[in-house]
Amino acid sequence: MTVWLNGSLVEAALVDCADRGFTLGDGLFETICFASGRPRHWDRHWARFTKGAEQLGIPIPTSQSEVLQAFADLARSNGLNDGTVRVTLTRGIGARGLLPPATPSPTLVITMVAAAAPLGPARLTICTVTRRNQFSPLSQIKSLNYLDGILARQEASQKGFDEALLLNTEGYVAETTVSSVFAWLDGELVTPPIKDGALPGVARGLVIERLGARERSLSLADLLRSEEIVLTNALGCRSGIEIDGKLFAVGQKIQEIQSTLLRP
Amino acid sequence: MTVWLNGSLVEAALVDCADRGFTLGDGLFETICFASGRPRHWDRHWARFTKGAEQLGIPIPTSQSEVLQAFADLARSNGLNDGTVRVTLTRGIGARGLLPPATPSPTLVITMVAAAAPLGPARLTICTVTRRNQFSPLSQIKSLNYLDGILARQEASQKGFDEALLLNTEGYVAETTVSSVFAWLDGELVTPPIKDGALPGVARGLVIERLGARERSLSLADLLRSEEIVLTNALGCRSGIEIDGKLFAVGQKIQEIQSTLLRP
Repeated sequence: MTVWLNGSLVEAALVDCADRGFTLGDGLFETICFASGRPRHWDRHWARFTKGAEQLGIPIPTSQSEVLQAFADLARSNGLNDGTVRVTLTRGIGARGLLPPATPSPTLVITMVAAAAPLGPARLTICTVTRRNQFSPLSQIKSLNYLDGILARQEASQKGFDEALLLNTEGYVAETTVSSVFAWLDGELVTPPIKDGALPGVARGLVIERLGARERSLSLADLLRSEEIVLTNALGCRSGIEIDGKLFAVGQKIQEIQSTLLRP
Repeated sequence: MTVWLNGSLVEAALVDCADRGFTLGDGLFETICFASGRPRHWDRHWARFTKGAEQLGIPIPTSQSEVLQAFADLARSNGLNDGTVRVTLTRGIGARGLLPPATPSPTLVITMVAAAAPLGPARLTICTVTRRNQFSPLSQIKSLNYLDGILARQEASQKGFDEALLLNTEGYVAETTVSSVFAWLDGELVTPPIKDGALPGVARGLVIERLGARERSLSLADLLRSEEIVLTNALGCRSGIEIDGKLFAVGQKIQEIQSTLLRP
C-alpha cells in the first residue's frame, strides 16, 4: 500500500521515534470518505483540520491543493476509486519535554485504504471505564489522543458489544467512540452540544444545518426514551441501535440523514 | 545518538506510520533518572510501567533484564554515565479503527539523553485552557496522550510562566504538567490524591511512604495558603514556587524531600 509522507509517495512510511506524534500524541487527523474518486464534504474536513491545527499551534506544511493532489496520486497508485482517506499531522521531531520547538517541522502522512462495507445496526453499551472530558479543548479536536476511546471500545468488546456510548464528567451523553449521536425525541431531532463533549463531526454539522437538528443536552434517561437513534460519522450512519439490551426502532430518520449526507 | 528499538541498537529509530502509538497515542512510557550508571528507583518505575501496560492490555515484549541491558548498552554507546532514560511502549502496527488487533506486535523504544541541569524555582500559572480528567484511567497511567499537558504548557509559556498548575474537572488541584505537587499545610505535608487526577508518580510515592505525606484533596484556596510548595518528579524536585505572582517560601521541606529521593 503506497503512502504519502511529507510530499512523497512511499511504499513504507517511516517516522522518527522522536516525532512528537509518537512520543506525546502531539497532532491531529481527519478521516474522509473518498467516493467515486473524490473526497466527500472536503471543504468541511479541511476547515475542521485547519482550525484544529491552529488551536494546537501546528503549522500545516502543505497547501490544500497539494493535499488534494496527494489523494489523486494515492488513488491511482493504490488502484482505488472508493476508499477511506486519513490525513495525519504531527508537530514533528522534538527534543525531550512538553514545550513544542519554536520552529516545528511538522509531519504530514496521508493514507488511503479500500472502503469498508457499510455498517449495519449497532449494539452499544454505556461506557463505565472512562468519561469524555468536556473541559478539554481536545474534545473538540480530532487529536491523536485516542486512548480513552480505545479503552471504551475494549470494554464494549469484552462485554460483547459493538460500540460504547460515552458520557461526559457530568453524566450527560457526549458521543460514541467514533460517531455522533442523533435522537428523535419529543418530536424533534436532537444531538448533544459541543459543550457537553461532542466532537464537532463533519456529518454532525451537516445534519444540524440541513435537517434542522437541535443541539440539546441529553441525560441518559432522555436518550433511552427516544423513538429512534442514529449514529453518524464521515463514513456513514447506523440505525437499529441497541443500548445495553434496549432496542430502538429503525424509523424514518435514518433515511433522511443518509440521503442528506450523500448530497454534495 | 544511538537508540534501542525492539531489541537492536540503531542510529536512527524509525517506526511505521501505521504504528498505533503514532496514529492513536496507543501506548505509554516511563522517564527514568539514570545516575552513576544505574536507573534510579528502577523497581518502582518497572512496577508502574507493567501495571499501566496491563491496564491498556499491551503485552511488554521484552523482559526486565533485557531492558536493563538496553540501558547499559545505550549508556556505553552514547558515552553517558548520567542521563535521562525514556522507555516507550506502543501497541504496534494496527489496521484502521480503534479496536486493538487480537495479537498485537508491540513496539518498544528506549532512548537515553544527557541529564539536564537541575531545575531551580518555578513560576506557575493556573491552567485555564483545560482540566485534568480524574474520571479517566489515563490520569493514572503515563500514557502517550499528552496533548492536554502540551496545551497547558503552551498557555503558561505564552503568559510568561514556566509551568502550569492543573485542576481537575471539579476544581481541585491535581498536579502540574510534569510534576506532583506537595504542600506544607496546617502542619503536615500533603499531596492531591490519585482520585483527584494526580498521576501516581514514582517520586510522589516515595515521599508519601518515607516522609509520611498524606493524600488530601486540595482546593486552590488550600494550596494558596500553604507555607511551602514542592514539585517532584523522577528527575528531581523544585521549591521556591510562585503561583500567579504569589511566592511561597523555600523552607525545610525541599531538603527533606530532596534527600529522601536521593536514597536508593
